[in-house]
Amino acid sequence: MADIEKLEKLARLVRFYILEMTTRVGSGHTNSSLSAVELAVSLFSTKFRFDLKNPENPANDRIIFSKGHASPLVYALYAAYSGLTEKDLTGYRTINSPLEGHPNPRFKYADVATGSLGQGLGIGLGMALALRLAPLTQGKLSDYQLRTTNYELPTVYVLMGDGEFAEGSVWEAMEVASYYKADNLIGIVDVNRLGQSGETLLGWDVETYKKRVEAFGWQAMVIDGHDLKALVDLWTSLETGKGKPVIVIAKTVKGKGVSMLEDVNGWHGRPLPQEDFEKAVKELGNVDKSLRGKVALPDKNMKFSTRSNSIYSSSLSASLKVNFVEKVPYKINEEIATRKAYGEALTVLAEVNPLVVSLDADVKNSTYTESFNDKYPKRFYEMFIAEQNMVSVAVGMAAMGYVPFVATFGVFLTRAFDQIRMAGYSRANVKFLGSHAGVSIGEDGPSQMALQDIAMFRTIDGSTILYPADGVATWRMVQLASKNEGIFYIRTNRPATPVIYTYKEAEQFKIGGSKVVRSSSTDKLTIVACGVTLIEALRAADELKKKKVNVRVIDAYSVKPIDEKTLRKAASETNNLVITVEDHYPEGGLGDAVLNVFAQDGQVKVFKLAVAKMPKSGKPQELLDYEEISSRGIIDKILQILG
Amino acid sequence: MADIEKLEKLARLVRFYILEMTTRVGSGHTNSSLSAVELAVSLFSTKFRFDLKNPENPANDRIIFSKGHASPLVYALYAAYSGLTEKDLTGYRTINSPLEGHPNPRFKYADVATGSLGQGLGIGLGMALALRLAPLTQGKLSDYQLRTTNYELPTVYVLMGDGEFAEGSVWEAMEVASYYKADNLIGIVDVNRLGQSGETLLGWDVETYKKRVEAFGWQAMVIDGHDLKALVDLWTSLETGKGKPVIVIAKTVKGKGVSMLEDVNGWHGRPLPQEDFEKAVKELGNVDKSLRGKVALPDKNMKFSTRSNSIYSSSLSASLKVNFVEKVPYKINEEIATRKAYGEALTVLAEVNPLVVSLDADVKNSTYTESFNDKYPKRFYEMFIAEQNMVSVAVGMAAMGYVPFVATFGVFLTRAFDQIRMAGYSRANVKFLGSHAGVSIGEDGPSQMALQDIAMFRTIDGSTILYPADGVATWRMVQLASKNEGIFYIRTNRPATPVIYTYKEAEQFKIGGSKVVRSSSTDKLTIVACGVTLIEALRAADELKKKKVNVRVIDAYSVKPIDEKTLRKAASETNNLVITVEDHYPEGGLGDAVLNVFAQDGQVKVFKLAVAKMPKSGKPQELLDYEEISSRGIIDKILQILG
Repeated sequence: MADIEKLEKLARLVRFYILEMTTRVGSGHTNSSLSAVELAVSLFSTKFRFDLKNPENPANDRIIFSKGHASPLVYALYAAYSGLTEKDLTGYRTINSPLEGHPNPRFKYADVATGSLGQGLGIGLGMALALRLAPLTQGKLSDYQLRTTNYELPTVYVLMGDGEFAEGSVWEAMEVASYYKADNLIGIVDVNRLGQSGETLLGWDVETYKKRVEAFGWQAMVIDGHDLKALVDLWTSLETGKGKPVIVIAKTVKGKGVSMLEDVNGWHGRPLPQEDFEKAVKELGNVDKSLRGKVALPDKNMKFSTRSNSIYSSSLSASLKVNFVEKVPYKINEEIATRKAYGEALTVLAEVNPLVVSLDADVKNSTYTESFNDKYPKRFYEMFIAEQNMVSVAVGMAAMGYVPFVATFGVFLTRAFDQIRMAGYSRANVKFLGSHAGVSIGEDGPSQMALQDIAMFRTIDGSTILYPADGVATWRMVQLASKNEGIFYIRTNRPATPVIYTYKEAEQFKIGGSKVVRSSSTDKLTIVACGVTLIEALRAADELKKKKVNVRVIDAYSVKPIDEKTLRKAASETNNLVITVEDHYPEGGLGDAVLNVFAQDGQVKVFKLAVAKMPKSGKPQELLDYEEISSRGIIDKILQILG
Repeated sequence: MADIEKLEKLARLVRFYILEMTTRVGSGHTNSSLSAVELAVSLFSTKFRFDLKNPENPANDRIIFSKGHASPLVYALYAAYSGLTEKDLTGYRTINSPLEGHPNPRFKYADVATGSLGQGLGIGLGMALALRLAPLTQGKLSDYQLRTTNYELPTVYVLMGDGEFAEGSVWEAMEVASYYKADNLIGIVDVNRLGQSGETLLGWDVETYKKRVEAFGWQAMVIDGHDLKALVDLWTSLETGKGKPVIVIAKTVKGKGVSMLEDVNGWHGRPLPQEDFEKAVKELGNVDKSLRGKVALPDKNMKFSTRSNSIYSSSLSASLKVNFVEKVPYKINEEIATRKAYGEALTVLAEVNPLVVSLDADVKNSTYTESFNDKYPKRFYEMFIAEQNMVSVAVGMAAMGYVPFVATFGVFLTRAFDQIRMAGYSRANVKFLGSHAGVSIGEDGPSQMALQDIAMFRTIDGSTILYPADGVATWRMVQLASKNEGIFYIRTNRPATPVIYTYKEAEQFKIGGSKVVRSSSTDKLTIVACGVTLIEALRAADELKKKKVNVRVIDAYSVKPIDEKTLRKAASETNNLVITVEDHYPEGGLGDAVLNVFAQDGQVKVFKLAVAKMPKSGKPQELLDYEEISSRGIIDKILQILG
């Protein structure tokens, strides 16, 4: 039983740090931090179990501060519990400090980046599911099963603001968490009534919050978020593992503890000026800066491990060793859709890497992840038609050491651009598969065509974009994605296309590589293409050859990073004439990637063929012709260029 | 009271058309269409009021088929009610027909494009709010008020699938619709249990649907979606205007009417092969192809008008005539943030254009739309932190003839990329404002910085991107956006920057234009910049001048379309050396737009300065320096280029 008086003193200390940090730097979200002080302190001093000296301890509970703007609270809290020093706090929001305006993994206790609201609950769900999966994980590393005996389930906590409950992504996490009975997940809502610019959608109507949360299948409890005794009772009596995730709905006051800020609009993101700061500190009363709270250590017996550890690397190296692509069953000229090859490759990969998990948004019969589901049902997650949450869940799983492959139609990944963007700042090890790229999907029409996906993923920090032209290359791309850290995007097509590579050729493919597939000493220009347009480019080249016009063809399967060296060499050997062909809009795709290679060359001319007319419904080949990116369009363009 | 027997015959006819269309073309979503036949027929024959000869009749009810993949139902339905001919149906999914795989405005009865699930309800909400706003709209066009007397509120219907209820955007629309008491909005859920690849999140658990919908403040009713008598009773007794939006939760069978399809998984998006089609038709029984249903006409007295009519154009021409920018209060060298100028300009615009509405996602004190809210509260919509729904609502309002300006931090528009993408296919007249662009926001850090927004908007069909460098230019951009149809994106910055243009200069700014702000006969190269980096470029140019190095500076305020002519002239006059500077990632931004201008030039060298290092928290100027896009970075780069 925690000492309430000590908690009051700790709360006072945390408030003091919050006010001091924000006033010092002259920015930061003071009042959003003050409302959650009792919630945080009561949790840290009672139920939360964490080894502050070893954040990587697999037995640790996890906590995500989804209301990332309350970063002053986060840092003040860890300081009050000896995770940070007062000196650390002085760096807050300065350019060389890891204590940024919104927490991200530069801060040692942040597993992920937060600051775009409504994403924390989905990430927490991913962590909770990963923790539940660990002891069950299938695979060849028998020592892995061994080391996960006497497994005790850590709890994942997510502190949210009330404003972010307007985000649909929160309700996606809600519905999926209850579907999967993620009962080691506890959400905490700081209902302080005020958003940035006024009252929130529901204000202090905590009963409506409760009704909505319960309707979504969660256990909900309402509490006074400033009543330390009530909070301690709640945390000490609260049991997880009852089949339902839990939400604590805490009625609080924004700016609590500083009368000039309490429940006053217009102070969001504004620190106190120096003179008001001094008044506020007086109001706080006696602050004991030598006081420190204590977070209980987790269960020592818990042995399963996370990304940073040997399991992860051993399974990775396992997948490195296994000659994975050798197993590819497709023969030259056999017709297979790259989206189908993806599902089949992923299923084979799962065998050698027990940390690979597959997520899909109700299109598993289109992305062919259903074969993964058939063979490894425990590692397959049907995420339903809720792409934002699917991505956040994957980020959470990756933070726990798994290697999530997230699949849906490429176009519907645009639904989760903000989550993918934040995944970049989380340095998440998530692999994305986008199927049904481009107009080559045919009759379903524009709404289902990925025509902006490459542009989107090119803007993601440290992303790699791979676009295989055949089934064999697809297997290699899946292996490259699983072997290398970071965000990968693999783009695949709907129609069946002929196999053009042997597995020995594909094994040579690398990140930042390309493949010269047609070449002669008399090539008049270079065609750069990938995916379905590479097949068209080869047809064009063979047609032109009959007309005694030789052209070089490069498969730029690594769109990001792109193979500058090979492209430069080819251009210099083919009259400085380059033509790019892509089943994507002209903006931000392969063509622009190639343009950047020659930006400062001052000689090379680049001609872009892309989807320049608004697409419509029609037969795949009709549409490729209509957009002038088929072999016919390529030939016409080349003859025009060569005059 | 409708004749049930006739409805049964109509249902049979609609089913016949559905089967015939999809089997003929060999693609399409047959079974998703069959489950909603009774829902659609009963509505069209009873409550729905629509002038099929004049889809633009302002008194029409509206209907959005959010489950756009059920397009066979849509076209079959309009054929059975004389809106289409049997010949029209033969064009389904063929390249020259407006009857595409998923409906879009090429089809005369589709106000918007659907096909990306979960967006229809938000669009319907926008239409419902627009209909409620019409008689209230403030403004100078007194005849407008006049013509909106004796106003009777049309109803907006949205037919949804059950699978799309997993999308968070649906729950965003739910919470906002009940907040605004949009009681002229009726949602219909076709709960046919099966998604594309298996059972949906809730299957046939209609009671849980009811609980969730009611918790979100809607009136909900559960019904057997195939019981025509019950449906007719429901539609004839259902009253709108009771203070709550209504959801009809219909339990249905996927593939209803064709035994081999009924409630069978694996047929999603698959038509019947010819031989099965013949069996199915036998099973349907006698089909009377001469039978036609009748949709009741709307109230003739309703006079208020929509986009296609005189009001809209007259208010547009009004805003054209008014010398709007002349009213700008800022003086040269005065410091003002472009985001603030946006809010102030919009408020002045609202006075001359009564159809301008303002939407904001709880950042109205950052985008300064709060001044609009103060002056025109009835035309201001607080959309809370739910960006996806905010965009869908704007699309619905635009379809009703309003001119929505949608404002939030530029970075959070990425949350709605899929909605913005679909807005492009809807040819929506929506204007987007993205504030807090780039690293110049400072301490809040990467999660709040728009660094991918230009890349995103450049990929939107027919979009225009304007990026003003000062407050005066911002006013002009707002006017250009209001005067011209289509999707506009205006990018603004957080910090206050000096006014550099007079209103007479700004009045010359045009879509596809640019402004040469520094020029001499001895310029050694050309700097292309916009927004905050233009100010840095000017500082750099003035510094260099002191060093006797003259450079040309171009304000490329129109990023899309970009001013090719001026850029080509400048390059040719400045040694073919061009340097671009942008507070945006290197991918897909200003630099790439400029690269495309010179792609086939074969002489010009383009050097790109952009945000190339992962950004962090810090002072705005520190971060501009850190990313080497400040005057210092520009000078260093130029001296390096010039050797």
